[in-house]
Amino acid sequence: MCLFCKIIKGKIPTNKIYEDEKVFAFLDIQPVNPGHILVIPKKHVANLEEVESNDLKALMVVIKKMGSRLKEKLPCPAYNVIQNNGSLSGQEIMHLHFHLIPRFEGDGLKPFPQQKYGLGEAESIKERLQF
Amino acid sequence: MCLFCKIIKGKIPTNKIYEDEKVFAFLDIQPVNPGHILVIPKKHVANLEEVESNDLKALMVVIKKMGSRLKEKLPCPAYNVIQNNGSLSGQEIMHLHFHLIPRFEGDGLKPFPQQKYGLGEAESIKERLQF
Repeated sequence: MCLFCKIIKGKIPTNKIYEDEKVFAFLDIQPVNPGHILVIPKKHVANLEEVESNDLKALMVVIKKMGSRLKEKLPCPAYNVIQNNGSLSGQEIMHLHFHLIPRFEGDGLKPFPQQKYGLGEAESIKERLQF
Repeated sequence: MCLFCKIIKGKIPTNKIYEDEKVFAFLDIQPVNPGHILVIPKKHVANLEEVESNDLKALMVVIKKMGSRLKEKLPCPAYNVIQNNGSLSGQEIMHLHFHLIPRFEGDGLKPFPQQKYGLGEAESIKERLQF
């Protein structure tokens, strides 16, 4: 059984924030900032591609509420929602999870650096991805 | 009119990847990695708290499809979904947007560093946030 499935079933203690029929939310034990929450589906799926649309909808409803709640109750002025797919993206537990990361003035967290496209590169990628 | 509203209305040229009644997706002009896509609602809202649940559902359906598409067509082995709320979180355009960032072996992108909670700190935060 995966680590998050054990947490859902209460086999590993956690700081639970919210639970309903489809969704479970708890504090990340190694937070990027205090109040860092993980929101997960109770049904085990590895990533975004595997989740059923009803479960995804339920997750997003909770994430939206949780964001407002972080701003009001923590409180924090801003937050990131981050969801990683695949080990090369930084996903460590192969059970779909959304990170809610509260952000504070001067927390020193840096966004990923940005690049520029070479001539014709963006158009060529667009043609591959467009649908 | 905000920058993204101008892009939706075709007043600013863009590399459009997808469009339907509620959702618009295009290549970020300054990609973290090539193939970096922004998925946005056509209706202007600033952030996750302001979006209606039907629009949020439509966005997530597209994001889920787009993730599979990036892996298959770009191709890339992994990707991040990132959504920032508030200028302190790195949000630059105040029109709700989801970043889909393709990830590659050796791309050198680093996740945010993690911390540990002090004694009783997590429990106190849990009590504030729990619902």
